[in-house]
Amino acid sequence: MAVPAEGLPARVRIHEVGPRDGLQNEKSTVPTAVKAEFVHRLADAGLTTIEATSFVHPGWVPQLADAEELFPRVSGLEVALPVLVPNERGLDRALSLGARRVAVFASATESFAKANLNRSVDEVLAMSEPVVARAKAQGVHVRGYLSMCFGDPWEGAVPVDQVVRVCRALLDLGCDELSLGDTIGVATPGHVRALLTALNEQGVPTDALGVHFHDTYGQALANTLAALQHGVTTVDASAGGLGGCPYAKSATGNLATEDLVWMLRGLGIDTGVDLGRLVATSEWMAGRLGRPSPSRTVRALGTTTQSHKEQ
Amino acid sequence: MAVPAEGLPARVRIHEVGPRDGLQNEKSTVPTAVKAEFVHRLADAGLTTIEATSFVHPGWVPQLADAEELFPRVSGLEVALPVLVPNERGLDRALSLGARRVAVFASATESFAKANLNRSVDEVLAMSEPVVARAKAQGVHVRGYLSMCFGDPWEGAVPVDQVVRVCRALLDLGCDELSLGDTIGVATPGHVRALLTALNEQGVPTDALGVHFHDTYGQALANTLAALQHGVTTVDASAGGLGGCPYAKSATGNLATEDLVWMLRGLGIDTGVDLGRLVATSEWMAGRLGRPSPSRTVRALGTTTQSHKEQ
Repeated sequence: MAVPAEGLPARVRIHEVGPRDGLQNEKSTVPTAVKAEFVHRLADAGLTTIEATSFVHPGWVPQLADAEELFPRVSGLEVALPVLVPNERGLDRALSLGARRVAVFASATESFAKANLNRSVDEVLAMSEPVVARAKAQGVHVRGYLSMCFGDPWEGAVPVDQVVRVCRALLDLGCDELSLGDTIGVATPGHVRALLTALNEQGVPTDALGVHFHDTYGQALANTLAALQHGVTTVDASAGGLGGCPYAKSATGNLATEDLVWMLRGLGIDTGVDLGRLVATSEWMAGRLGRPSPSRTVRALGTTTQSHKEQ
Repeated sequence: MAVPAEGLPARVRIHEVGPRDGLQNEKSTVPTAVKAEFVHRLADAGLTTIEATSFVHPGWVPQLADAEELFPRVSGLEVALPVLVPNERGLDRALSLGARRVAVFASATESFAKANLNRSVDEVLAMSEPVVARAKAQGVHVRGYLSMCFGDPWEGAVPVDQVVRVCRALLDLGCDELSLGDTIGVATPGHVRALLTALNEQGVPTDALGVHFHDTYGQALANTLAALQHGVTTVDASAGGLGGCPYAKSATGNLATEDLVWMLRGLGIDTGVDLGRLVATSEWMAGRLGRPSPSRTVRALGTTTQSHKEQ
């Protein structure tokens, strides 16, 4: 039964990150044919934006080293297929295959910028500058990922003003939309509202913002609700909650797309997603990965919860 | 970092159900001494209302057949210790041990009343009538649990009016507070708000209402946020998410107290709970049960996530 709540958007666009953010954090490398089938099945389930892969150096993320093989197998799909490009070399590779949407990334904290890219926050932005400029010159849509928007493992709580500054910088470079990442999953709803409000006050419109929550502390869906109440209509999620083993301390714990769809469907918010097909897809992928999905909705609705040995 | 959000209560009372609702759904029966230590540790962690056990017929719930042995071991604690009493016999047993808070239960749907108690909804209420009357006559606080307030496995979505009628009936019997149960975990935030609003419109004040969400579809914390926004200040939760195996389809999936405390702490809402002590308690209990806690916060903060074999 759908029971709408006042003040929520009528429609939400889910930015599906499973094939990229999910699989890059899996220990096992998934065969290219399986990845391609995964993207096709996600599109068939009604997802309209599917982040397909990452054109990073294969040495950085060996799980996605097959980007050149994968992308042509999915690029004919009638959905938006953004790809991550960390630098100009990555952009060249993506453009040569016909990518029309790319994503760059930045960090809200110096510690993470240093740990992840061995650069300062401003050096990361400088690295992105020509990437965004050249992409925009070719009419390519650019998303900017911003990590550590709420908490940072080294620095603790991240001041809102610091996040706003980097958001403004990414938009000034030419990014079309931003994804506000709670990379370590510590955010709570008041913090989410405070950041969104501060961004609006500094001239960043809500429709340029997506949210990217992790379920490390079980907060992702409550934070999503707070973001929707603020007017956000773009929500990142990962089919089946892919991305890091849920039974390990280091779990990255992406918000599971199914859990998100359950809530949105119950709220009468249109996503275009067929939940049954999506659950079947995540169960199939869980079988390939040899472990159950951490998504509670997949477990509740799935047919093979007790046995994930089938390949 | 605590970042309050507008319109939320300053303080929330957590009604801890782990020792009763949690353990009664565990396959293994926990020794009485372990249960007593569990309740003591929960009190030590700052929980002020701990549902200790159930005085049901031992044949119904063998996991809690030791209520007579357990209650005297915890009744000296300086916390509220409600116990479940299904009928007058249960009430007699609880009162003879000095219980000052009891809970009765009812169903919002005919199907569940029939399946669970082989009675109609009104017959269940009739069974509770003398229990509540006698408890109140002795100055004992009475909570009324209402199951299936949102969805029912046989009947689907449960009409709000139907729930309101049974809530009114429980209050008319003399219940001091109600706990609105989403027994199968299907609720979403709009439905939560709609039910609370309808109850208010029919004269049920919000401060007589607690919420009891299950995480079967991952919705419990988002629903809790919606309830808090409506003004609810009593929230049921189970330490470590105890209550049914999270890896089985039949998982009952109580909201984990730790995940709730993480959100409330982040919102600057006072609960009096020491999260570190609570996590340590749930890890200790997970060791006793021989399986990891399904609480994401316990997994993220815990020290023994990788190994749950120690007894």
